[in-house]
Amino acid sequence: MSKKLVYLFHEGNATMRDLLGGKGANLAEMSNIGLPVPPGFTITTEACTEYYEEGGKLPGDLMDQVRVALAAVEKDLGKTFGDPSNPLLVSVRSGSKFSMPGMMDTILNLGLNGDTIQGLIRGSGNERFAYDAYRRFIMMFSSVVLGMEKREFEHAFDAIKSQRGVKQDTDLSAEDLKRASEEFLAIVKAHTGADFPSDPQLQLKLAIEAVFRSWNNDRAIVYRRTEKIPDEIGTACNIQAMVFGNLGEDCGTGVAFTRDPSTGENLLYGEYLMNAQGEDVVAGTRTPVPISELRSQNEAVYDEFVEIGRRLEGHYKDMMDLEFTIERGRLFMLQCRVGKRTGPAAVRMAVEMVSDGLITKEVAIQRVNASHLDQLLHPRIDETYIQDRGITSIATGLAASPGAAVGKAVFDADTAARLGQNKEKVVLIRDETNPDDVHGMLAAQGILTARGGKTSHAAVVARGFGIPCVAGCEALDVDLEAREFHVGSVTVREGEWVTIDGSTGAVYNLQLALIPPDVSGYFGTLMTWCDEARTMKVRANADNPRDALQAIEFGCEGIGLCRTEHMFFEADRLPIVRDMILARNDELRDAALHKLLAVQQDDFEAIFAAMSGRPVTIRLIDPPLHEFLPSYEELVRVVTELRLAVNSLGGSALKEILEEKEQMLKAVESMKEANPMLGLRGVRLSIVFPAIVAMQTRAILQAAAKLIKHGKPVAPEIMIPLVGHVNELRVVQTQLEEVAKEVCEEQGVDIPYLFGTMIEIPRAALTADEIASYAQFFSFGTNDLTQMTFGFSRDDAEGKFLQRYVEQKILPVNVFETIDQKGVGSLMRTAVELGREVRKDLKCGICGEHGGDPESIFFCHELGLDYVSCSPFRVPIARLSAAQAALRGKVAVTVDK
Amino acid sequence: MSKKLVYLFHEGNATMRDLLGGKGANLAEMSNIGLPVPPGFTITTEACTEYYEEGGKLPGDLMDQVRVALAAVEKDLGKTFGDPSNPLLVSVRSGSKFSMPGMMDTILNLGLNGDTIQGLIRGSGNERFAYDAYRRFIMMFSSVVLGMEKREFEHAFDAIKSQRGVKQDTDLSAEDLKRASEEFLAIVKAHTGADFPSDPQLQLKLAIEAVFRSWNNDRAIVYRRTEKIPDEIGTACNIQAMVFGNLGEDCGTGVAFTRDPSTGENLLYGEYLMNAQGEDVVAGTRTPVPISELRSQNEAVYDEFVEIGRRLEGHYKDMMDLEFTIERGRLFMLQCRVGKRTGPAAVRMAVEMVSDGLITKEVAIQRVNASHLDQLLHPRIDETYIQDRGITSIATGLAASPGAAVGKAVFDADTAARLGQNKEKVVLIRDETNPDDVHGMLAAQGILTARGGKTSHAAVVARGFGIPCVAGCEALDVDLEAREFHVGSVTVREGEWVTIDGSTGAVYNLQLALIPPDVSGYFGTLMTWCDEARTMKVRANADNPRDALQAIEFGCEGIGLCRTEHMFFEADRLPIVRDMILARNDELRDAALHKLLAVQQDDFEAIFAAMSGRPVTIRLIDPPLHEFLPSYEELVRVVTELRLAVNSLGGSALKEILEEKEQMLKAVESMKEANPMLGLRGVRLSIVFPAIVAMQTRAILQAAAKLIKHGKPVAPEIMIPLVGHVNELRVVQTQLEEVAKEVCEEQGVDIPYLFGTMIEIPRAALTADEIASYAQFFSFGTNDLTQMTFGFSRDDAEGKFLQRYVEQKILPVNVFETIDQKGVGSLMRTAVELGREVRKDLKCGICGEHGGDPESIFFCHELGLDYVSCSPFRVPIARLSAAQAALRGKVAVTVDK
Repeated sequence: MSKKLVYLFHEGNATMRDLLGGKGANLAEMSNIGLPVPPGFTITTEACTEYYEEGGKLPGDLMDQVRVALAAVEKDLGKTFGDPSNPLLVSVRSGSKFSMPGMMDTILNLGLNGDTIQGLIRGSGNERFAYDAYRRFIMMFSSVVLGMEKREFEHAFDAIKSQRGVKQDTDLSAEDLKRASEEFLAIVKAHTGADFPSDPQLQLKLAIEAVFRSWNNDRAIVYRRTEKIPDEIGTACNIQAMVFGNLGEDCGTGVAFTRDPSTGENLLYGEYLMNAQGEDVVAGTRTPVPISELRSQNEAVYDEFVEIGRRLEGHYKDMMDLEFTIERGRLFMLQCRVGKRTGPAAVRMAVEMVSDGLITKEVAIQRVNASHLDQLLHPRIDETYIQDRGITSIATGLAASPGAAVGKAVFDADTAARLGQNKEKVVLIRDETNPDDVHGMLAAQGILTARGGKTSHAAVVARGFGIPCVAGCEALDVDLEAREFHVGSVTVREGEWVTIDGSTGAVYNLQLALIPPDVSGYFGTLMTWCDEARTMKVRANADNPRDALQAIEFGCEGIGLCRTEHMFFEADRLPIVRDMILARNDELRDAALHKLLAVQQDDFEAIFAAMSGRPVTIRLIDPPLHEFLPSYEELVRVVTELRLAVNSLGGSALKEILEEKEQMLKAVESMKEANPMLGLRGVRLSIVFPAIVAMQTRAILQAAAKLIKHGKPVAPEIMIPLVGHVNELRVVQTQLEEVAKEVCEEQGVDIPYLFGTMIEIPRAALTADEIASYAQFFSFGTNDLTQMTFGFSRDDAEGKFLQRYVEQKILPVNVFETIDQKGVGSLMRTAVELGREVRKDLKCGICGEHGGDPESIFFCHELGLDYVSCSPFRVPIARLSAAQAALRGKVAVTVDK
Repeated sequence: MSKKLVYLFHEGNATMRDLLGGKGANLAEMSNIGLPVPPGFTITTEACTEYYEEGGKLPGDLMDQVRVALAAVEKDLGKTFGDPSNPLLVSVRSGSKFSMPGMMDTILNLGLNGDTIQGLIRGSGNERFAYDAYRRFIMMFSSVVLGMEKREFEHAFDAIKSQRGVKQDTDLSAEDLKRASEEFLAIVKAHTGADFPSDPQLQLKLAIEAVFRSWNNDRAIVYRRTEKIPDEIGTACNIQAMVFGNLGEDCGTGVAFTRDPSTGENLLYGEYLMNAQGEDVVAGTRTPVPISELRSQNEAVYDEFVEIGRRLEGHYKDMMDLEFTIERGRLFMLQCRVGKRTGPAAVRMAVEMVSDGLITKEVAIQRVNASHLDQLLHPRIDETYIQDRGITSIATGLAASPGAAVGKAVFDADTAARLGQNKEKVVLIRDETNPDDVHGMLAAQGILTARGGKTSHAAVVARGFGIPCVAGCEALDVDLEAREFHVGSVTVREGEWVTIDGSTGAVYNLQLALIPPDVSGYFGTLMTWCDEARTMKVRANADNPRDALQAIEFGCEGIGLCRTEHMFFEADRLPIVRDMILARNDELRDAALHKLLAVQQDDFEAIFAAMSGRPVTIRLIDPPLHEFLPSYEELVRVVTELRLAVNSLGGSALKEILEEKEQMLKAVESMKEANPMLGLRGVRLSIVFPAIVAMQTRAILQAAAKLIKHGKPVAPEIMIPLVGHVNELRVVQTQLEEVAKEVCEEQGVDIPYLFGTMIEIPRAALTADEIASYAQFFSFGTNDLTQMTFGFSRDDAEGKFLQRYVEQKILPVNVFETIDQKGVGSLMRTAVELGREVRKDLKCGICGEHGGDPESIFFCHELGLDYVSCSPFRVPIARLSAAQAALRGKVAVTVDK
């Protein structure tokens, strides 16, 4: 029972965030460096944890420790808690390790009662102020501690105002406020059946319990889930002597940042109000004034504050968020913490602080996070605009491809393409997309689908082309015939404006203003530092020359995944691909393959040219062939209708169409699979239909040969997907090596190609030693590896249960976004170890979507991978994360949540 | 070059099968124990391997070694190879380690030419015999060595017969046969452009090469694939002095078994022909006589042969298959090998040989294999009947549920049920089956489907109910409207007879005779010995009381897998299950669940009663809910038709039906999954809809309580399927333990229940330590574990590529039949080790279909599993295999292939 649960401010410091919470630790730090902080103390987070462990009871001797600390404060100020003549009043505030603004509860003016108010009146010489403080305290305490509704008090207060015929609180007299206090006390008694607790010690104990309880209120729980803050760390509780900004015109209160949190500019930024309490600044009933005006109002205080800001920034070596109060011309610091900032600001500050000599480059790298960069790299919705106008989204889907998009709603690809060509901005809205929609998708600003997960056709294509996409927005009821969609009672018709945010999944039925991407010079500088720091290479997933160029602009060092079939999906190729699949004899099939050879070779030439000798990993055909054919359900519908039509109407033309459709239906039916994810795809396809990959290999190497002959360097890496057994790789690789030799001989050049494989089947990881005897490189396909290791189909899981799993903490993270280290990660570790046992210099990379996720990149670094590969727009994030991974453990930095 | 490649018979013995092949090793053994074997020698399998390694060249000094061995034979017999006056003639025969009857080539009478034939005429005193031998030799040599068609010679021979006006070969004179020999030589010259090789040494060399080549003829390759004989072991080549059974009436030849190979009866069994060569016995032109008649023909020879049979059986301690020739009253043994036998014979012999003191019980157990028992346990097609009549199957599908079935073709479940009730035998033929078909499946003798793999609905239900089933017979074109099916040009109409063999996959359009199961006393004795020998327990997969009783009859020691949802599929429950799934509110859902509770409880009571206290592992609901609803495609079709009908005809009744169907379509659509295997099923379902498993747990424990109150023992083990993360198990198990406690309290009894999980998701195996902290037992669901580890959907793989994988040896076995030890097996080993680290006495079993596969059972024994569980009809096989596994390494036995 002798555990120290209470720390006076001068007993703590900024490193004690775990124990004292962020607010408590910083109050302690400020006290210790001599800043003017009203005296107080912090009850530790351990006390909170114990409170919960004991089923909601404060630790046995906590209140004794509180009394000792309180005595020190009393001594410091020469006031006594509960003393009717000169009462000490305190604030009681929560404060956890991670900032959770507005989530938990605060009580001000604690210590007031019928007796001590007299002392406050005397001490302040301001009866109106005292009763205002009293009525505020009663309401706050009753709401926070006694669980009453604020509304009840507000009604009573409004009644007084209307009786007095006034609109503003400030127009009420001391007498009115006294009456309000009395009515409030009566309301409490009526509601709780007991008197309002007047004993300050009891008030304090109840307030502390309430603060601990507030850790688990609904808002706080939801916030922690969103921000991924652990539930079990608890909150500290800060008890601090009150200072008042509302004692008169020489008083005031305000908030400020040491630099502009929106732009990062090195300027004191903030606002304040004279003769006001903190809540007045927040409530918005009066409009605060920019901090710069304080100079003219009270230059001494202003200069002191500027100096404090400078000292704190120098001390914390970061941009600080400050709260202050001026009581009778004297400045008090009530809070300081590392300030939140926008992405552009984070980058600018980090770079400028290095120039200022405040931090090192290594620290600067740690100061910026992925979502900061994401803001820089995509157009985004102006959050202030939305918040100011109280605009809410009409629905939320999956954040499938980042960035915001504004356009007119269209419901089919052809319309999208037509309007897009006329430079009209459109958002293509579909139940789900398929290969036939690609031309419309490319013409759209953004894509919105009602069904499908983050690996649905829409999501994959959109990410591939850098088009914002919200997928699987299940609330959407798309009525294609009526050309409109419904969400609840809202209807959006074709041509009406919508805005979607592919970074959050939000959908708006409005034309919102967007903030364009901001890739400034600061960004470039930071990226250079990242490149110096990191040891892993960063490649991009790019399927066409345009993406390749985009990726190079973002600093990629190669292509880690070029999905050849994405070329198949383009409008001019799809008919040839279908001809190939449906060919009735070898001759027709060869003809189709021959046509494809030409277009694929062109694509590869352009990609190789764009990459100027950087390695390009090309994955041979992966998806099941039926993905290239029309939808089975649609064909069933069409054939059923046509049969009825032919039966009732006859007609030879109709009959011909029916026959054609029936034939297509038969073909699609014969290729239909119960679980296409686990069916005839990847290397299996190459074993059954070897001609396709032979064609692809030829296209790759002929393209490479052409560049070489023009004196341009190339480094193709041919990747065979979905290998589970070494024999699959052996058979296909052996055949393709024949093709490669042929091409080299025909072309008379040496092509520096490699053959390798994806590791995306659990068995491949388990037998990686066997597989490495053939494969010259491994690339982890963690999308599929996660699907197989968990037995989750991502498309099905994300809509049906995965979200619930994350909410219920059955899974700590969405395993399709962040690698599951214990399961999937252990297979990856096995694969790297076994693979490098056999082939010491085995090149290992990752090309699943996890390659762009910071946590996963850290893990890849730990595993010793040679590179990560991600979508072009994630390349800067990957460069940053790879650098952070390399610096981890080498540089100690606190990064604020 | 000094490697010994040639062994005289007296240099070898029976243990040298790897080197000398089966035939050579046994000839050597017989020589050495003093039996009358014509002298000769064996060229080793290593010579064959070298022949292939050298690209088809005999090892350098092989022919030298052959000449040395030949000299020894010459010396032994006093004859010389190629000597025109007294020529040694030899046979040249292949003989690999494993018997491959008729697959490779043989040449007799080698050494004959225009000169040596004179010596043969003189030595035999029989010109007709000599020319008969000569013409046979020319034809055989030309066909085997020179690659000519036998047909060419047969035409010429037939021409001579018709010129001479005779029908039988035996009616031709010496002169005729001489002419035939001359014409044959002319044909060879015309065909090859060169003279028939007359140099006996050259003949010998060419014949040896031909034998080696025949190892890789098409027939041999196909045979090895079927029998799983390795390709790389090669064949030996036996060269032996000729003896002649066709020199006159004191000569003869025959084959015999030391016991009856069909029944196992301890009786010399075989047949012979006097004045004949071996091929005459095989060719069937003359009818051989039972061996018993030899006694009256030549008692001395008969007695000698009986005695030799007795000696060989005593020597080999097994039933032997013998070939003999009598030359001028003298008995020669040409071959002996362990005889092939039917299942019933294998069991009877094994048991009787133990009584005879010939072998131990342990050896007896090793003498019987799984397919022997399979023959005993199911009705089977009479192979002799088929072969005698040259009947062939019209198609082959997957052997999905063992046993043969005969019945009239029917094409829908209702008809099957109706006819089945009238005791008519029917085979239900469908494209694929679904839950609506179950009543018809139960009424059928057998089930035949055109689509779906070994885990398709049809296959699973059929195995569950012990009904023979051929699934995925892709050649079948089922025309439901016309009530017929087509296979190529064959049409089978409703009511016509079909026979299917669920053990081989064969389909016949005939009413074939079946041999009923034969579970004799010998079987019981053998099983008792197995039970004494084995250390693993054997349980059965049984979903209903009938199967449970059947399984007990076959000796199971518990139920390892009771699939609760199979009860849902039964006709009287399906509507309730659908009501539950489609319920619009909680009240309706609860009502449906309440009804299900009652029927499930009844089922469990009956199963527990049947099992009399043996453990019963009950798996909670596993399949996705949409499996219980009508098919999506069918609904699309119906709704499309109804819409058109309503549009053109109107009518309120039609409209109502349309609305109802549309509602169902919407429900099915919303539950549709891209990859149901990886979707919302198993424990995931229980997390999203906890009420179903709560109901099931209640039903299980209420049933258990009822039995306990009646003084009957029960041991329920509640199994939660598809766990991939310990948290899934934790959440669901915790909820269900609450239910369990409730039931125990309500019922006022202690129920000895366990909670455990399936290990069927790779991640579960990788994190088995975490999972074992909750699970009290593990049961390996190797079907799903194999699917996920390989990323194969069995339904898709088996039809589309798995067969090709096995044929191309990409996979050494069908991994859905035999556990893939390197991949899936390594996950199993990890799971057992990690699990038992945390829970030392963790009960581990297997309930996937591999639990009934001998190789897999051996592996489970190695892993230290506590039990295997398989379908009731596989229980005896599992008992046998578990015993063999326990004896492995302890008892040395050669088991003949």
